[in-house]
Amino acid sequence: MTTNILFLSTPKRWAEYEPPLTHALAATGLDFRLAEELPAAEVDYIVYAPGGATDHDFTQFPRLKAVLSLWAGIETVIENPTLTAPLARMVDHGLTQGMVEWVTGHVLRHHLGMDAHILGQNGIWEPIAPPLARDRRVTILGLGTLGTACGRALASLGFPVSGWSRNPKTVEGITCLSGPDGLKQALSTADILVLLLPDTPATRDLLNAQTIAQLPQGSVVLNPGRGTLIEDAALLAALDSGQIAHATLDAFRIEPLPADDPYWAHPKVTVTPHIASETRATTASEVIAENVRRGEAGEPLLHLVDRALGY
Amino acid sequence: MTTNILFLSTPKRWAEYEPPLTHALAATGLDFRLAEELPAAEVDYIVYAPGGATDHDFTQFPRLKAVLSLWAGIETVIENPTLTAPLARMVDHGLTQGMVEWVTGHVLRHHLGMDAHILGQNGIWEPIAPPLARDRRVTILGLGTLGTACGRALASLGFPVSGWSRNPKTVEGITCLSGPDGLKQALSTADILVLLLPDTPATRDLLNAQTIAQLPQGSVVLNPGRGTLIEDAALLAALDSGQIAHATLDAFRIEPLPADDPYWAHPKVTVTPHIASETRATTASEVIAENVRRGEAGEPLLHLVDRALGY
Ligand SMILES: NC(=O)c1ccc[n+]([C@@H]2O[C@H](COP(=O)([O-])OP(=O)(O)OC[C@H]3O[C@@H](n4cnc5c(N)ncnc54)[C@H](OP(=O)(O)O)[C@@H]3O)[C@@H](O)[C@H]2O)c1
Ligand SMILES: NC(=O)c1ccc[n+]([C@@H]2O[C@H](COP(=O)([O-])OP(=O)(O)OC[C@H]3O[C@@H](n4cnc5c(N)ncnc54)[C@H](OP(=O)(O)O)[C@@H]3O)[C@@H](O)[C@H]2O)c1
Repeated sequence: MTTNILFLSTPKRWAEYEPPLTHALAATGLDFRLAEELPAAEVDYIVYAPGGATDHDFTQFPRLKAVLSLWAGIETVIENPTLTAPLARMVDHGLTQGMVEWVTGHVLRHHLGMDAHILGQNGIWEPIAPPLARDRRVTILGLGTLGTACGRALASLGFPVSGWSRNPKTVEGITCLSGPDGLKQALSTADILVLLLPDTPATRDLLNAQTIAQLPQGSVVLNPGRGTLIEDAALLAALDSGQIAHATLDAFRIEPLPADDPYWAHPKVTVTPHIASETRATTASEVIAENVRRGEAGEPLLHLVDRALGY
Repeated sequence: MTTNILFLSTPKRWAEYEPPLTHALAATGLDFRLAEELPAAEVDYIVYAPGGATDHDFTQFPRLKAVLSLWAGIETVIENPTLTAPLARMVDHGLTQGMVEWVTGHVLRHHLGMDAHILGQNGIWEPIAPPLARDRRVTILGLGTLGTACGRALASLGFPVSGWSRNPKTVEGITCLSGPDGLKQALSTADILVLLLPDTPATRDLLNAQTIAQLPQGSVVLNPGRGTLIEDAALLAALDSGQIAHATLDAFRIEPLPADDPYWAHPKVTVTPHIASETRATTASEVIAENVRRGEAGEPLLHLVDRALGY
């Protein structure tokens, strides 16, 4: 029997994904049909990457076996009450690698004090070498696929790395913390703080006036996670008071970040336009195809989302 | 018998080194005297880090067994004709680590296109993610202590790394090249070129109009090695023509770089004031003490300079 796979996204993304996804699905040996439009009654799987609204009515697909997201963050998808089929998020080697590069690069940028040289080519020779990485403590909030990969890369460069997650963990080379006490300790040693938590009711506004006060004075914040993790007014106040020396932000409550948002003009803020990492069509297509194969073989799907936890 | 060690440097450096060096020498169990001034006839070893002129008359030290440099680069020291005793340069774990951080950080900076975000906080949201490291080729000229350590770190982040040295080598994860043909190949794949050669007659002006033309168009040059490796006029011309997109330079023919040097004001050049890496007093003191111990025990010294080759 033919497995019917609906690609529910934008025409642009369809153009990008049709070749690699067809290739990856063909490699599974399944008899499949992949299209942007299919009779609703026949749809088995949906590859999902909405371009705008996420209020699709999933009740129109009676045979739906799973929704396979092309995104790593699924906080808007999960809010759709008509979506009751299993939901898998994207965990993609290329996406992880891109995040490791962004986080390692920006940690080193702040560690080495590069901005002073990039911005200040003023003819003044002041040879002050930065401390070594072993004297710069990095904390990562979120020790999932991305946080763990970033933590390992930073630890291998010599940074003392702490990580914080919901459940207790053990990761070689990383001081693993969890729970409310763990958070306090993780924050207290964060010369550089990296936010790699998902957006859930429990993580919203996690970085607020109270938690910011628990950071060492003058720490640097990197947010390649989600905009909702930060209470923006509290961060701006802490930048102005000097409690936080700099923030480099890749994710925002509203994207694109409006041109008049105070983050753009703030001298202690660097905005990057949600480019820390993106799903790569080739590697992501292999993940989707593997999940379709598993679904058809009756094996458990990879990267299933826990709706109660929201990630 | 007492081993007499003369510290020939500046008062500032003496203040910095006296405690860790005394500590490290004491740990060898030797009976030693360490001082800034000693009767010339009694000096066994000189710890050498001249603050200015390097024309010391070493013939006044009849018992001199070795000169132990606190610097990694010894091109000016080696030119002193009165220095005929064995000369050891500094190879120090802290120095290597600092260089790995500087090189990795600046490679990632250029790879990720950070400058556009650091300089251009203009309210324009243009989400173009950079390629992955595996699609950015890095070439390191010089595969010694520093070049090899940097190459390994970059390779472990996913960059395809080539390295070039005088003698053929094998380093896991690095495409090792040598000789004139090797240089041509190394340059031809250098999306980012890192110079980590010593200053010798054979390396002077190595990056000139002819070799620059062998780089891919738009490549980026990092020079944490020595200023003499680059023919400055040729580099400036290549930056203006676009053959080289950017140069980040830490070492110069004249240091401090004069305030009116064209490098300072050039929009495609970043000057860092010879801070890529510095010798760290604690770890360097251990290296010096180990060499004194070896000298007294009749064992071969570490990191001896080959005067004929100049490094
Ligand atoms: N900027 C970008 O380009 C970009 C790209 C991709 C992803 N992202 C963001 O990065 C986030 C993380 O991705 P991932 O793949 O690493 O996710 P993941 O594998 O699901 O990991 C999430 C981590 O957060 C922890 N966590 C969740 N809720 C928590 C809570 N209430 N308290 C403490 N820890 C909590 C989890 O703890 P447990 O381990 O205990 O479950 C886990 O360690 C995504 O959700 C997305 O928002 C951004
Ligand atoms: N900016 C800073 O803060 C800073 C700090 C420390 C050092 N440095 C500079 O970095 C340089 C490298 O340091 P290191 O410790 O890595 O030196 P090293 O261990 O002596 O290595 C030098 C490398 O250059 C190669 N080489 C020398 N002459 C060559 C030639 N004519 N053709 C091709 N390859 C040649 C050597 O080849 P073989 O392996 O075949 O011998 C070796 O691989 C130092 O000399 C110093 O100038 C800068």
